[in-house]
Amino acid sequence: MNEVQKKGQAAKLASYSLAGISTMAKNEALEMIAGQLLKDQAEILAENQKDLQEGKQKGISEAILDRIMLNEKRIDDMAHAIRQLISLHDPIGETIETIQKENGLFIKKNRVPLGVIGMIYEARPNVTIDAATLCLKTGNAVILRGSSSAKFSNMAIVQSIHRALEKSAIPLDAVQLIEDTSRETAQALFHLDQYLDVLIPRGGKHLIETVKREATVPILETGAGNCHVFIDDSAEEDMAVRIVLNAKTQRPSVCNAIETILIHEQWFDRYGVKLLEVLHENGVEIYGDETICRAFKAANTATEEEWYTEYLALSVSIKVVKHLDEAIEHINKYGSQHSEAIITDNELNASIFLNKVDAAAVYHNASTRFTDGFEFGYGAEIGISTQKLHARGPMGLNALTSSKFFIYGSGQIRE
Amino acid sequence: MNEVQKKGQAAKLASYSLAGISTMAKNEALEMIAGQLLKDQAEILAENQKDLQEGKQKGISEAILDRIMLNEKRIDDMAHAIRQLISLHDPIGETIETIQKENGLFIKKNRVPLGVIGMIYEARPNVTIDAATLCLKTGNAVILRGSSSAKFSNMAIVQSIHRALEKSAIPLDAVQLIEDTSRETAQALFHLDQYLDVLIPRGGKHLIETVKREATVPILETGAGNCHVFIDDSAEEDMAVRIVLNAKTQRPSVCNAIETILIHEQWFDRYGVKLLEVLHENGVEIYGDETICRAFKAANTATEEEWYTEYLALSVSIKVVKHLDEAIEHINKYGSQHSEAIITDNELNASIFLNKVDAAAVYHNASTRFTDGFEFGYGAEIGISTQKLHARGPMGLNALTSSKFFIYGSGQIRE
Repeated sequence: MNEVQKKGQAAKLASYSLAGISTMAKNEALEMIAGQLLKDQAEILAENQKDLQEGKQKGISEAILDRIMLNEKRIDDMAHAIRQLISLHDPIGETIETIQKENGLFIKKNRVPLGVIGMIYEARPNVTIDAATLCLKTGNAVILRGSSSAKFSNMAIVQSIHRALEKSAIPLDAVQLIEDTSRETAQALFHLDQYLDVLIPRGGKHLIETVKREATVPILETGAGNCHVFIDDSAEEDMAVRIVLNAKTQRPSVCNAIETILIHEQWFDRYGVKLLEVLHENGVEIYGDETICRAFKAANTATEEEWYTEYLALSVSIKVVKHLDEAIEHINKYGSQHSEAIITDNELNASIFLNKVDAAAVYHNASTRFTDGFEFGYGAEIGISTQKLHARGPMGLNALTSSKFFIYGSGQIRE
Repeated sequence: MNEVQKKGQAAKLASYSLAGISTMAKNEALEMIAGQLLKDQAEILAENQKDLQEGKQKGISEAILDRIMLNEKRIDDMAHAIRQLISLHDPIGETIETIQKENGLFIKKNRVPLGVIGMIYEARPNVTIDAATLCLKTGNAVILRGSSSAKFSNMAIVQSIHRALEKSAIPLDAVQLIEDTSRETAQALFHLDQYLDVLIPRGGKHLIETVKREATVPILETGAGNCHVFIDDSAEEDMAVRIVLNAKTQRPSVCNAIETILIHEQWFDRYGVKLLEVLHENGVEIYGDETICRAFKAANTATEEEWYTEYLALSVSIKVVKHLDEAIEHINKYGSQHSEAIITDNELNASIFLNKVDAAAVYHNASTRFTDGFEFGYGAEIGISTQKLHARGPMGLNALTSSKFFIYGSGQIRE
């Protein structure tokens, strides 16, 4: 048995007792974790410095170093997030459905934990604390496998969690960190069907694609967002400009930012160049189709590749379309089924767009930036699912649960 | 583009228009399919004969030939099942959740079709009609890939479905049959991520294991049932015997029949040998641990392998355990998380068992044979899920749906 299997087995055993622990005991443990993190702050920051120094020596980019970096404020934020999580409703034990049969059988379907959740993620050490506490709140054991670039920080954080759990009703084995961040341990996790109930990758496209291709464990896919706004013929000029600008520039690095603008040709004739100018003034690099490039000198030519690209930066692809159907077809072909918006005054067109576009969230006259567990009022977010099974769109605590049928009889048999 | 990709693409396109078709139009199409099947009966039976003759020549077993065999009664049953399906509530379009935000955004979460469902299955041609009609009822397109041993029957059935669809609002491409039953087409289906939203394998353990190992498309796992009954110390003798006999012998070939009996040692001392005798008299072959083999001459010795075995036949593994915890541990180690029962008069033991045993359905004082979509009142069954994501236990129409967030605004942007 290798390290990953041993930790898998230990997590599985812990998950059986975790499933029976009360909400109060779970919340007490979470409070202890929040307190312990603050107590261990100096130690965690010292270990984080080791990661940062190693990163600098290896020539890791400033952007990634910033993601790895912890400071007092970031640790305070972690503790604060845990206290918010404590205040959330615990979904475990809820009865979703009851069935009373004529033969006297009583059936109830309750929410239960998934069991053991694997998390494989990149860079940010705050994912370590996020994932661990969300899993514990929902009665799940968790196996964490972060990246080598944050290994000292991750070890210090998990050590702090373990110190807190020692005083709690939750077994230490409920939170496992795989310290060896080699390719082999990732591979082992992909195939840990015996002990893992689900594997959640959090990180870049490459990580997610690898997990999708290789894992035999069921996965929850999150993250990729090639989102569009379609400006219809009848869109109000002001609203269209405001929404496009917000969806593209307010925070371009996130998955619910837009990557492509589709514009109805009649709207483009009226307001198109003005929109392009506003984008340009706001520092947005434009990749356009022929019409765009003819109308606006600063535009680059968009090739097939650009329509598929999630820039996650101040760049955007723009295409002029003849009608609604062409916009819908484009989105269903190139989109990643995340968040898609139409801006229009035409209710019928809005309805056709919302129904025919295949995505987790579809918007009429609003920015795609609202696709977010906190914005939707879930109080927590595991990620944004772009798959159709189990959970779609922003995932709150319910996404970390399964269900179980409890059947109560008095000797019933099937005739 | 090969046959499978072409059919995938056509099904995907059909799925977009299917998603917008009304319940009435879907039910009308289903009624046409039921009528057409009866009209095409002679033709379907003639094609079925070809499969049966080929099967006999190839030396296929009588049991499998019986599964392939169609007759007037079986076609009548298919038409009857379709008419029952018509009467069921259509889940598509249901609003599951609504959120009114302070900024004026209105968010609703609706049930929508999954999109394109792949079915890969063995022998029984009735799965062809079942799968196609359940998918159409829930607005999904379907790609069917049956086994070579039923290929003529499957082709005749799908031809009949297409004749019916020609007169309906549903595009013909919504139901696709992959006629080439070679290994290559199965492989292509496993990796048809571009067009398939989910793949459902229905068949033996080998098929399901292959799909789990190889598919990159998300799957819904069904079927494997290594189920147990635990007879606790305080179990009433009559009830225990009645339930065990029902769960083992009423229909041993199905997944919710039991494969192992665990008996508390004190109950065994009092009634064990009588139970073994009853099982033996009912033609059940017994594989037992040491205590069983010592007490009952006709018993065979159970090895590690037997505890894992799903006999699907009149055989059973029996183990005497010291206490409740040993029973729970055994089930969580060897079980397939399908259906598990405890027979006891001790409410506390029942509660511990139901909570700690990790399975889709857990029973107190009733036969495991009730785990079934029809018994649970769902009116239809796609299969019994033994996974924890998306759906667990008997799957009705809801299991063939996903959800989608519709967000209505008036120009809202994120601050």
